[in-house]
Formats: sequence, C-alpha cells, structure tokens
Amino acid sequence: MLYEINEKAIKLQNQGKKVTKLNIGDPDLATPPEIIEAAYDAMKKGRTKYSSAFGEQVLREKLGKIHGVSADNIVITPGSKWGIFSTMYLMLKDGGNVVIPTPYWTAYGLTAKTLGAEARLLKTDLDSNWQVNLEALEELIDNNTRLIILNNPCNPTSKVMDEKIVDGIVKIANDKKIMILSDEVYSEISFVKTKSILDYNSKNILVSGFSKMFTMTGWRIGYVIGNERLIDKIAKLNQITFSNVPVFIQDAAMVALDLQNKLTNEIREVYSSRSQMASKILTEAKMEFSNPDAPFYVFPRYKGLDSEKFALDILDRGVAIAPGTSFGDYREHFRISLTAPETDLKAAIIKICEAVTE
Amino acid sequence: MLYEINEKAIKLQNQGKKVTKLNIGDPDLATPPEIIEAAYDAMKKGRTKYSSAFGEQVLREKLGKIHGVSADNIVITPGSKWGIFSTMYLMLKDGGNVVIPTPYWTAYGLTAKTLGAEARLLKTDLDSNWQVNLEALEELIDNNTRLIILNNPCNPTSKVMDEKIVDGIVKIANDKKIMILSDEVYSEISFVKTKSILDYNSKNILVSGFSKMFTMTGWRIGYVIGNERLIDKIAKLNQITFSNVPVFIQDAAMVALDLQNKLTNEIREVYSSRSQMASKILTEAKMEFSNPDAPFYVFPRYKGLDSEKFALDILDRGVAIAPGTSFGDYREHFRISLTAPETDLKAAIIKICEAVTE
Repeated sequence: MLYEINEKAIKLQNQGKKVTKLNIGDPDLATPPEIIEAAYDAMKKGRTKYSSAFGEQVLREKLGKIHGVSADNIVITPGSKWGIFSTMYLMLKDGGNVVIPTPYWTAYGLTAKTLGAEARLLKTDLDSNWQVNLEALEELIDNNTRLIILNNPCNPTSKVMDEKIVDGIVKIANDKKIMILSDEVYSEISFVKTKSILDYNSKNILVSGFSKMFTMTGWRIGYVIGNERLIDKIAKLNQITFSNVPVFIQDAAMVALDLQNKLTNEIREVYSSRSQMASKILTEAKMEFSNPDAPFYVFPRYKGLDSEKFALDILDRGVAIAPGTSFGDYREHFRISLTAPETDLKAAIIKICEAVTE
Repeated sequence: MLYEINEKAIKLQNQGKKVTKLNIGDPDLATPPEIIEAAYDAMKKGRTKYSSAFGEQVLREKLGKIHGVSADNIVITPGSKWGIFSTMYLMLKDGGNVVIPTPYWTAYGLTAKTLGAEARLLKTDLDSNWQVNLEALEELIDNNTRLIILNNPCNPTSKVMDEKIVDGIVKIANDKKIMILSDEVYSEISFVKTKSILDYNSKNILVSGFSKMFTMTGWRIGYVIGNERLIDKIAKLNQITFSNVPVFIQDAAMVALDLQNKLTNEIREVYSSRSQMASKILTEAKMEFSNPDAPFYVFPRYKGLDSEKFALDILDRGVAIAPGTSFGDYREHFRISLTAPETDLKAAIIKICEAVTE
C-alpha cells in the first residue's frame, strides 16, 4: 500500500491540495548547490554519452578507498534500490528462498514476490526492542536459502542492530555458507555507531547510496559492493536494462563525497532535533515506539489501530504516512518520515495524534 | 560480444589510447544546450526529489498528444531499453516464447536469455533485402508465444520495413491474439516514412526514447505506450527497481520535445551525408550491404569473414565495431555506427576496409 499512497499523494498535490508528505524517506532539504553545479559542469563538458555499465572508474576507485575494497568489487546503480533488485534477481530468479527480519522495507517483499521467490520473514517486535532472535533465524534457514537481507539501520524503525546480534547473524550465515545482503543506506548518517557488514572477513554484499546522505534522492545513484563475480553479473544486467547511471550524475556524486563530513553532520543535527520533537508529542499522546537511532523514521504503535484505514483517512486530511502493514505484520503501527520542515512536521504529527485517538 | 567490446574500448580510452568508437549507437553530436539549461534550471528549482513511478504527468500528456493516445497509456522509463526489459520481464518471466526477426538488437536476445524464455528467431538476410517472410513467421508462433518483437527501423541494418510486411505481421498477431512490441526508437529520424505500430487499431506496444532523436543517449530517458494494465504493471516494477527517472531529466525532455523538428532535420542531414560517404567507400572495397533508410548504422558483409576475430583485431588498431554475431547468425557481417565526426569516421571506415581485405 506504500506506493499506492505515494501515487495518490502526488495526484492530490498535482490537483493543488496541500499534502504534508511523511510517507516516504525523501528529505525536504535541498540537494547542496555544489552538487548541482558539478552536474551542470559535467553536462556542458559533454558527459552525456553512454558509458561503462560498471560505473565510472574514478567513482568506483573513490568509493573503494572509502570502504577499503578494490574498485573491481563495486558497481554503480540507479539508487540502492537497483542494487537490491539486481542482487535478488540474480540470486533468486531460478528459485530458492530469502530470509528477512521484519519490519522490513517494502521493496524487499515486493521484489521477492515478483521473482516468485519465497520470503521467509522473521518477526521482531517493539516489546523486545526489535532484536533478531538468532535461534529463530537459524530455524528459518534451509538448503534452499540463497540470501539473508539485513537493513541496518532499519527502515521503518530507525533502529541500529546490536553489534553482538550482527556478529551472531554473520556467524550463522558463514557456517551455512549463505550470503548476507546488508542494506546500509542510513548508516553514515546514523546517530550511533553502526557496524558494517564489510567489517567482517566474509564474502557478503553491501548496498548503499547517495540519496539519504547527500539529499540526492531523486538523482538515483547508489552502489553495490560484493565479490567480483556478482559485480560482473550486475553490470551485465545493467547493460540490458538501463545501460548506466548518467555520467554527469556520477560526476556530481564525486563532488558529493568531498562534502561528506560537512553534510552528514548537518543531517544528523536536523534529524536528531526532529526526532526529539516527534518523540515528545508521540509520548504525550500515549503512543508506543522506540527512539530513532538514525534518520528518518519513527514507527509508533497504537493498540487497536487499523493502520491501512488510518493512512487513507489521514491522507484525505492532508497528511501522508505509511501504514505498518507495508513493512510486515504490523497493523497497529504506522511509519512517520520526519522529512518536512519543523513547523509543518510538528503540525502534522499533532494532527496524526489527534486523529489516532478520535 | 557487443558489450565486452564496449567495456574494452572504454578501458583503452581510459588508458589514454585513441579509439574511434563505431561500436555503439552513441552520436558524437552534443546534447543541445537548451536541454542542458532546462535540466540545470530544474535542479536549482528543487526538482531533485522522488516522484511518480509513472513519470511526470505533464510529460506523459505531451507525449500522449504527439502519439494520439491518453497519458494513462504512457510510462516514462530510464531509456527505451528499460521499456523493452520491463515488458519482456512481465510477459515472459513465467515462461513462454518470444518471436524476433533477425538481425536483431543484442539486448532482446540477452533479455530473453536471462529470463529463461525461448527466443524464436526468424532469420532475414541481405540477399532478400532483409524482408520478413510472413509464412515463416506464422510457423514460428505457437500457443506459448507471448510476444513478437519488431525493431523498425532496424538496428543493425537501418532498414525500414515495407508497410505491407508490417500490415501482414499485425494481421497474423491479431488473428493469433499475440501482442507486438515495436521498438521504434529510430523512426522519427529515419530518411523514409516509417509506419508506426500505433497506426493500427490494435493493442500493441510501442517503445521509444529521447536518446537518438535528441542526442540524449547518456541521459537515459524513454517511454512505453501500451494498454493501461501493462503501463500500471511497468510502473509497479519501476517502484521496486529504480523509483523514477530523475525529474530534472524529465523536465529537460519536455524542452527537447519543443525542439523536435529542428533537431530531427539536423540529424537526418548529418547522417544522410555520412551514409553516402560510407556507402561509397564500402562499395569500392567490394563490401555487400543495403543502403541505410535511417541513422545510425550500416551492416556490411564480407564473404568468409570471421567478424568476432575481426572486431577484436580492429579494436587493437583503434577502431571499435560490433561483430555480426551480436545480432544473430551473421558471422560474415559487422555493424558500423556512423557516430563519429566525418574525418575520423572516414579514416576509420577506410582502415576497416583495408583490414578486411588483408
């Protein structure tokens, strides 16, 4: 239902209605002007042609240095989403299952579904602070398991996984020779240290992107880090699907990386303040939730709520949110993206709290 | 082998070697400055966010007017390539076969292969002027046929199909209730009138794009026109793969459409002149080929040639071409893209002709 609500919200906006869009993780902050100027310069220099399906070599090398891997282990993708889709496509199109802790990002489940792959969901809940139960994880894995997907920090809970839990998951995966795909698109901007899958000496896969860290959501650029065989296969899939991320966008991403420290500090500051404001209002309204460890989301629960019905109701009143059912079996939860200017955001959260308790 | 040669050519260029790249359809002409300025303006206006997976409504409406269809029948894609992949994915992922006349564009075959779908190839040849034999086509179709793919004008031959042949194919497809996917990305710039699949009163699918018509190859923007059910399904696939084509690129495409007449005339003039030059040299070198009806390719044959070996040899000498085997069972053919400035192009074709006859 996540995408239906988004298309409906866009339609309402096109009709001239005011909608505070807290339904997707699209920051209200603008893309920094340095990044825009870099794209413009590149366009004028003729960086508007077909190029390598692996991505620009200079960008791969720069990312390789940042992550401590070889450029050959990196492929540039149109958003981290394509990194996830392409990896899942390659590993699951001929069958098998994928194990995913929930609540999970909507696209994982929808991708498994379109590929005809079984998604084995491992439910975590607010009452146990969203911790993955390692024994339960191990039980879900069988000979047909091709992949475990982690999202750390997690969308929709903004929870960072305990390091010991990550250690445990990696050990299980290694023992059973199963790859982990770790979606770490929020890790560089998280409020607390997040252990990366690349910190382990194993052949797992990292997916990340420029969207969240550099306020470049609509630019569609991300990357996958993995073994060379997988990277080659993704590049081959790129060749027959979209060719390559526009080179001028890759040039802009090069400049973005130079701004990383400055930007991540700014983003952390803004979202830490918004999180505190949201927490205060939600607590007063007797909502249950865990405090965000990272931008951009909070995932409150209100006992007895039908979040699908609620999301449609509140959209008619000018606030778009995502129902908990978009992230698994979480009908009493809903996800608020803290991605609107402070005043609008505050008014919208107050409106949500009033509507919930009506 | 097409994509391997391209990656190798890029690598050689990155190493500082001069390579005349006649291996892909990437025009040497620059993207018009009006289009670049439109993208820049849009970026500065904050058109850098997530948006609809269908594409921007204004662009869909504008394309709808041009093609005489409703905006609801159009989805914007990252290049026409994604239009082809997504349509083939949706229609073939659960089995079935696709009928494709050859020589055909490399990506059709590779896409069928990755989807595990059977590609039933219908060979046409130079000696019968690349005409599709309707009886042979009919014989290839069975109950498992999901799609017929046409490419008109054709890459690699630059041949425009006879209208009567298109009539015949549409009749067969209608009778057997099979959809046609018509890739018409070269039709607006062809030297002769090209009958569109949309000229028929039937539920077929058109794929086109901005790459060739507006020298926007590296921008990655195209579109699909089809029935609403297919368009909805493609948009749903967009949502879980790349989200949407960057909005600032869609805004630039709006401006491109305003320049259509001026640009297509320019492109026709340049490529008509290059075609004549190429034809003259190839004829003198005793190559066999059909004169291009459209930009950008010529697909000569030289009896006894092993085009794969030849393509690798000539790449080492600084000219990249595509072997005939990339387009089906055409080992004695190779494809030259006329996509280099006149002087470079002439020198490269002379070099090719000398090397062939060595």
